[in-house]
Amino acid sequence: MNEELEMLYEKLLYSFENRKFADLRMALLDMEPFDIAQFIEDNLDEKAQVVFFRLLPKELASDVFVEFDSDTQELLIKAFTDKELKAIIDDMFLDDTVDIIEEMPANVVKRILKNSAPEDRKQINELLKYPDYSAGSIMTTEYTSFSAKSTVKEAFDKISRTGQNKETIYTCYVTDSKKHLIGVVTVRDLLFADKDELIENVMDPSVITVDTLEDKEEVALKFSKYDFIALPVIDHEGCIVGIVTVDDAVDVIQEEATEDIQKMAAILPSEKPYLKQSVFSIWKSRIPWLIMLMLTSTFTSIILAGYESRLSPVLYAFVPMLMGTAGNAGGQTSVTVIRALALCEVEPKDLFRVILKEVLVSLAVGLTVAVVCFGKLMLLDRLYDASITVDVSLVISAVCLISIVLAKLVGCMLPIFVKLVRLDPAVVASPVMTTIVDALSLIIYCSISIAILV
Amino acid sequence: MNEELEMLYEKLLYSFENRKFADLRMALLDMEPFDIAQFIEDNLDEKAQVVFFRLLPKELASDVFVEFDSDTQELLIKAFTDKELKAIIDDMFLDDTVDIIEEMPANVVKRILKNSAPEDRKQINELLKYPDYSAGSIMTTEYTSFSAKSTVKEAFDKISRTGQNKETIYTCYVTDSKKHLIGVVTVRDLLFADKDELIENVMDPSVITVDTLEDKEEVALKFSKYDFIALPVIDHEGCIVGIVTVDDAVDVIQEEATEDIQKMAAILPSEKPYLKQSVFSIWKSRIPWLIMLMLTSTFTSIILAGYESRLSPVLYAFVPMLMGTAGNAGGQTSVTVIRALALCEVEPKDLFRVILKEVLVSLAVGLTVAVVCFGKLMLLDRLYDASITVDVSLVISAVCLISIVLAKLVGCMLPIFVKLVRLDPAVVASPVMTTIVDALSLIIYCSISIAILV
Repeated sequence: MNEELEMLYEKLLYSFENRKFADLRMALLDMEPFDIAQFIEDNLDEKAQVVFFRLLPKELASDVFVEFDSDTQELLIKAFTDKELKAIIDDMFLDDTVDIIEEMPANVVKRILKNSAPEDRKQINELLKYPDYSAGSIMTTEYTSFSAKSTVKEAFDKISRTGQNKETIYTCYVTDSKKHLIGVVTVRDLLFADKDELIENVMDPSVITVDTLEDKEEVALKFSKYDFIALPVIDHEGCIVGIVTVDDAVDVIQEEATEDIQKMAAILPSEKPYLKQSVFSIWKSRIPWLIMLMLTSTFTSIILAGYESRLSPVLYAFVPMLMGTAGNAGGQTSVTVIRALALCEVEPKDLFRVILKEVLVSLAVGLTVAVVCFGKLMLLDRLYDASITVDVSLVISAVCLISIVLAKLVGCMLPIFVKLVRLDPAVVASPVMTTIVDALSLIIYCSISIAILV
Repeated sequence: MNEELEMLYEKLLYSFENRKFADLRMALLDMEPFDIAQFIEDNLDEKAQVVFFRLLPKELASDVFVEFDSDTQELLIKAFTDKELKAIIDDMFLDDTVDIIEEMPANVVKRILKNSAPEDRKQINELLKYPDYSAGSIMTTEYTSFSAKSTVKEAFDKISRTGQNKETIYTCYVTDSKKHLIGVVTVRDLLFADKDELIENVMDPSVITVDTLEDKEEVALKFSKYDFIALPVIDHEGCIVGIVTVDDAVDVIQEEATEDIQKMAAILPSEKPYLKQSVFSIWKSRIPWLIMLMLTSTFTSIILAGYESRLSPVLYAFVPMLMGTAGNAGGQTSVTVIRALALCEVEPKDLFRVILKEVLVSLAVGLTVAVVCFGKLMLLDRLYDASITVDVSLVISAVCLISIVLAKLVGCMLPIFVKLVRLDPAVVASPVMTTIVDALSLIIYCSISIAILV
């Protein structure tokens, strides 16, 4: 947090605690809703949060409300009178209302729906039906549309009349009488056009659209490809049912990146910020994979126990190095491929190109590491362990090379196979892959060293 | 890639190869620049790329050009006449020109600057001075500004007159005669205002700004917090020098997430998509950390070699399991903290809150894993290795608990310390942390088991 904001927060707290409410309102009017929400959550106890929220200038209340995390929202809704709740809901965009509803317990949902305007309630119920991963779940139904035969002047009139309640007015859509999407027109186009021109002559008839059930991650990718402010969402009949705006796409991109990072680190994804999660919920998100990976490491124990009597202690000393190197090498590849899949830079049909590339890279990387490893063994490791002979060093370096090649092959194929069976590649990143690679490299190490050295 | 686009690409290829250029132009006019650029790069050889690019409708050429990757851009610039190059550059936004220049060799940069309009050349040179990480490096100087005393009608006139060359017209800025930023006004505000109203009565005087040298990652975070379309960039005197638009912020968010993921997986970050990187450049990005981590694993070898004669083989068999579990447990924490730092959800001043949380979580997680581990040892591992006694199982489970607690503490403190000395936390994620945790857990394992069991 920057200093300016920190000073502002202190000022707010001072005004609030000393009941200088006029000063408080003045300061609040100049602030962004996000910053006000953060101030309330981080600096006030539950009771004060409710009091403070009621002091907010009316025009800010709903904007601040949507920025709270769901615990605070629930707390406030429970404290609201029906009238207060209704005022907030009426002022919110529908997609925000839906987002909030999805996080609330049943009795709170009931109260929210009861206090929504009847026409909103219907749309909210429609929006709630879209699955969590879909474009439908992040869209809003509040967009601006024109008919193709209206003029630019009429379009501006419509914007002035109805635009206050729309999430964006800058991108508008042109529909026929049955709501089929036939074109897109921006306020920019309208501003540069003659006032009497027909919309059909100003609009762009080729529109990039998304389907209601399209993965929201793909929708977000379209924003990063095409630089739009909004994208129309259409149903299977080509009718426009809503729009997704770029600010929602930004949130999706952030969340999906966080989620992928969590999965790659063997954590079950969570949407809440770290400091706001309880110890129990953190425990829940971390324990499943940790136990699973601990159990699967039984393989390495079995392998090592099996070779127990035949492997000399000097060779044991390099097991962590070999397994670590193989794990890191495989992790580099699997993470690269998983990210490329997520950004659609690589698709399952590229499997053979990826394998070919990784074979070449792994040979280059493996040879380099093996040579350095051989040098390290002969120059450094011999200093503390005299039983490291040239033969031992050669075996260890060779196993290093073979493990790296194998690890990188597993690392590139595994995510693509997982994607092909429509599961999430991110969950097979480092830890899962490492378990496989650990076992493989151990078997190779033990069998080669026994064949050659014993 | 979706089927619709694939069919379109086939049609383009057919028209191009059969020289049906009228059809080709018709089809191209309906397409997005990004898709055309992708078609050219993925389907045509170098010679055909140049020919195809020259066939593009004039109004599309520069839009498509900015979507190419830098190799293709360089190829095309070398093929262009000066006149062609000038036409493209004149039509591009300045920030795009600067982005392209940054990737080009010196002789190409010279040609680009030679063929820029003199007033652009000056601004390009100014923009090139901003460091790569900064807001200045992603901003454009083409924004719309008004004086506070002009009317709404005059503002619209100015937009109509000059807006064609601005990257966005939807957010405009109000400045005094010395370019000090005094307010922000959106086209939305203007559309809903009376035509004779003064701008100073319509504008919002409290503006969220960014500094020219602010980290572009922080700029992108501001977009995700505040849902803006553009943010003004100001110098140390409070004068507006440019704007950053949301599409650039989206790109920064994607790139920074990719970069962090690469760093966490011990890869030097690269901006090029995986399939477009050469084997040599992939080798270069992967080999430094791999060798470094291989070398640091010398510690584990030294430790194991030191305990060589005193550790019974049954204990060796569980070294990979213990080190793997500690590594995974530490990785969960370090990755969580690194991501939270990147999103500014956690700041270095939260160190003690984080430590406290991780102590509790690690005890909970560690105890759970230790109990399951003890069960596994007694029920499963005893089946293949009769030398696993209750004592051995207790020691292994206890070390499991201690290693997890230690790993999670290292995992949460390391990134924050690294951030405090202003380095990048992402590079100390899993692999580096694992090396530390590996050595720690080995020492604990060896010393405890020898103390108790020998």
